[in-house]
Amino acid sequence: MTRWDTRRTARDERLRAGRAHATGKVVDPAKLADLLHDVIRPGDRVALEGDNQKQADFLSRTLAGCDPTRLNGLHMLISSVSRSEHLDLFERGIADRLDLAYAGPQSVRIAQMVEDGTVHIGAIHTYVELYARMFVDLAPDVVLLCAEQADREGNLYTGANTEDTPTIAEAAAFHDGVVIVQANGIVDTAALPRVDIPGSWVDFVVEADRPFFLEPLFTRDPRHIGPVEILKAMIAIRGVYERHQVVSLNHGVGFDTAAIELLLPTYGEQLGLKGRIARHWVLNPHPTLIPAIESGWVESIHSFGGESGMNRYAAARPDVFYTGADGSLRSNRVLAQLAGQYAIDMFIGSSLQIDADANSSTVTDGRLSGFGGAPNMGHDPHGRRHSSAAWLDLAHGDGASRRGRKLVVQMAQTFRAGGVPTFVETLDAVEVGKHAGMPLPPVMIYGDDVSHVVTEEGVAYLYRAHSLDDRRAALAAVAGVTPVGRSADARRVEGLRRDGLVAFPEDLRVETRLADRSLLAARSIEDLVAWSGGLYDPPAQFRDW
Amino acid sequence: MTRWDTRRTARDERLRAGRAHATGKVVDPAKLADLLHDVIRPGDRVALEGDNQKQADFLSRTLAGCDPTRLNGLHMLISSVSRSEHLDLFERGIADRLDLAYAGPQSVRIAQMVEDGTVHIGAIHTYVELYARMFVDLAPDVVLLCAEQADREGNLYTGANTEDTPTIAEAAAFHDGVVIVQANGIVDTAALPRVDIPGSWVDFVVEADRPFFLEPLFTRDPRHIGPVEILKAMIAIRGVYERHQVVSLNHGVGFDTAAIELLLPTYGEQLGLKGRIARHWVLNPHPTLIPAIESGWVESIHSFGGESGMNRYAAARPDVFYTGADGSLRSNRVLAQLAGQYAIDMFIGSSLQIDADANSSTVTDGRLSGFGGAPNMGHDPHGRRHSSAAWLDLAHGDGASRRGRKLVVQMAQTFRAGGVPTFVETLDAVEVGKHAGMPLPPVMIYGDDVSHVVTEEGVAYLYRAHSLDDRRAALAAVAGVTPVGRSADARRVEGLRRDGLVAFPEDLRVETRLADRSLLAARSIEDLVAWSGGLYDPPAQFRDW
Repeated sequence: MTRWDTRRTARDERLRAGRAHATGKVVDPAKLADLLHDVIRPGDRVALEGDNQKQADFLSRTLAGCDPTRLNGLHMLISSVSRSEHLDLFERGIADRLDLAYAGPQSVRIAQMVEDGTVHIGAIHTYVELYARMFVDLAPDVVLLCAEQADREGNLYTGANTEDTPTIAEAAAFHDGVVIVQANGIVDTAALPRVDIPGSWVDFVVEADRPFFLEPLFTRDPRHIGPVEILKAMIAIRGVYERHQVVSLNHGVGFDTAAIELLLPTYGEQLGLKGRIARHWVLNPHPTLIPAIESGWVESIHSFGGESGMNRYAAARPDVFYTGADGSLRSNRVLAQLAGQYAIDMFIGSSLQIDADANSSTVTDGRLSGFGGAPNMGHDPHGRRHSSAAWLDLAHGDGASRRGRKLVVQMAQTFRAGGVPTFVETLDAVEVGKHAGMPLPPVMIYGDDVSHVVTEEGVAYLYRAHSLDDRRAALAAVAGVTPVGRSADARRVEGLRRDGLVAFPEDLRVETRLADRSLLAARSIEDLVAWSGGLYDPPAQFRDW
Repeated sequence: MTRWDTRRTARDERLRAGRAHATGKVVDPAKLADLLHDVIRPGDRVALEGDNQKQADFLSRTLAGCDPTRLNGLHMLISSVSRSEHLDLFERGIADRLDLAYAGPQSVRIAQMVEDGTVHIGAIHTYVELYARMFVDLAPDVVLLCAEQADREGNLYTGANTEDTPTIAEAAAFHDGVVIVQANGIVDTAALPRVDIPGSWVDFVVEADRPFFLEPLFTRDPRHIGPVEILKAMIAIRGVYERHQVVSLNHGVGFDTAAIELLLPTYGEQLGLKGRIARHWVLNPHPTLIPAIESGWVESIHSFGGESGMNRYAAARPDVFYTGADGSLRSNRVLAQLAGQYAIDMFIGSSLQIDADANSSTVTDGRLSGFGGAPNMGHDPHGRRHSSAAWLDLAHGDGASRRGRKLVVQMAQTFRAGGVPTFVETLDAVEVGKHAGMPLPPVMIYGDDVSHVVTEEGVAYLYRAHSLDDRRAALAAVAGVTPVGRSADARRVEGLRRDGLVAFPEDLRVETRLADRSLLAARSIEDLVAWSGGLYDPPAQFRDW
């Protein structure tokens, strides 16, 4: 007779074993290692919350210290492999297989461990792809998660950095997996500011030895924004935001988009664009957006995660930010990704390397850093069916085939620091992918998804090109004296300008002589604090006063 | 001084006004109309849960009965406009603006009301697009939702048909909107089978006058599956599933895919395909999938919603279905959409009308029925970065541009009932869109997203075409004697078969003479009940014994 409840039976056994180390759902921190040894089984698929920002590091450190003779062969699902103990798991033989989305600071070590055969990579995903697979062919047996506070019934307050916790919890709680959560504090139910995840989804909670690790990934110090970033920002505002009347958008992280954020209340205001562009945002609470918010540019912001130091500010601006009834920020990566994919006019982000077809990658140093979330934002979603003015402005096709298009804008400086060209014949990613045995090169954003490229030379309106040859010529026209740019032919460039495939600053009435730091609404972190009326609390590494 | 908490202040006022008609969060059903009059304000944006299946109909009936001199100018967000009171709201002047995803049975009346100026359409979306906009530019002021059970603190059990409730609740609960929920029963906390949505997201609960309306949308009676559907299913299994080794997939609703489901345990088994194809599914609990599940074909199913009559069966098969700790089915449209978009090899669904470029539409009778969820499943997601064998099998491009592709398969019979051709020169949708003043024709799935078209004539492998002309010729080759098919040239078709752009049954070793009902694993609803061991409880309209 067929058994239809093997997962449930296994879950029941795991819970029974785990309860020996817990009082109800509450685990004694000193017994966490015992619990993990007894709840997790060799060969299990284990999702460990390493998000883009927050890290369930009490759980990961404890798991990495487990006995590999008892716990081994684990298949880890870690969206952001960013802590050394994530890889210690493999070195110690506790885990051997890894599915991930992003490696970041561990990318060099991970590449070496793949080469040594210590880590077997299932696949490298974007964040939401990895979560999607948890509901299809990578259902986790055990998930190790992270919260601000829990009560004894397992109700969780995830706070400003909700990020991915509800999604991973759902994958386990609703398919007979076990949900184990570390919390910064275990409190009485009445003391929970709000419940983000119901206790009936949670099996065990443990008070962490120290607050979970959180990285301030979205803070850019305005002091590092120079005239070239400012010029690119001016070009983008006139040549993209104003031209297409971009109302809803996502900014990638980086100094280029930070410069745009800081130019809205100055340059944007002078152009009379307030209220006409950039009203609805999907992005983490970028500190550099504070001046635009305070100047009344921003109607709403929905966030993938939080940002260190921004919690008091976000709580004081609930008309703009999504907050709970308790007043604190709510973030949710899956819903922000949904919003960013289906409900906005534009994605704009920086790229480190772009080839002649406008394929781009952030892999430039031989490291396999993964994808994160950019590919999901940086493509035209073919499942979209509603219109907006900006989307229709890029309409293409005839008859039944006619439809609009999301603006996918890449910003880049023709040369990076040290005179390294950004525009290259072949992406480094091609070689890195080959070396790592990947089935395809790890391209971040594909050229045919890119509608515009902005450099300090001007804008290439790639979406207007009728042929691949025109696309390449338009891109070359803004690529400066890089290997790609040197192929540009002056006569042809004039034709492309006439036909609207390329615009230089003078075509956009951008006065390059104005591109200096006096245009920045804030020139330092201290300025941002002042703009916030003291509500922004920058992390220590960004303070020098 | 700028006010940053206008939404919160308004929410506080609404809650204060509502509390006059409630004891704590519990509203006296007799006072629901009073509460709605006092909590909702003229001009509000109100999301009303009309999902694909379940309907918050106590709330919608009560709202439609409100006094238009007190409550008017509402902007309604209703994903599925399927009940007459949804439109009564407009006729009575309570609402005047509508954003929707699907109209279904109300599509004729809605078209008339748009023409009369009684309903102003914001846009027609897919389901997830509409939810996405609730986090960007369509944040609701009040949401009216639906649950199986609630406790007095507002904790909700949404049961098998969770569908969209958590997503819409989140849009309001975390942006100072008011959340009002009807429940079939209000019970003690301890009596809730599980908590799907925490009470801290919910402001008011009311016991409904009768259980919420639920439509059995995914039940197909095998008696209506004839030899042509069976032939198409055989062609699809050999020409698509087997050829590309499709492991993970989504089936649209309809008799074509129901036939495939019923052929897996017979024809699929004979071909030795069990365990090699169709192991992981994203779809509602289709009753016609029961024989394949019972025969051990199906490892997992994640669902957008539930299906009437399938709850006992799903609860008894927890290794396959996603279920809660209480044992009952869990569904979640947003996560199933995420899974369907980013984690599966194939979407396959039926179409009613297809043009020469393979654009397709279900609009064939002058009605504006909307999009539902098919466009989100029926496109190649460019944000995907992990590989699978089937996805790589459709790889295209060179160098950095090389990538795989999702299989997007359209099934159709060359002629529909009454001799109406499926393949046409121009989709009816073009005229309907023009008439309704839509900015673009309401195309369900765009031709350039379609990789394969399956008819009773054979398979067109559109993804293999190197030119638009080849694509059209391949499609024409399987379009029979329809206006599109008559353009096919016999000599050219032979070339297309040689080059692998077209396959006829004999090319696929499909024996057309075997295409009869004896191949169906179940030939009636009664057979499905028998396969389920009596666990499937078909709705009354599907019973005749």
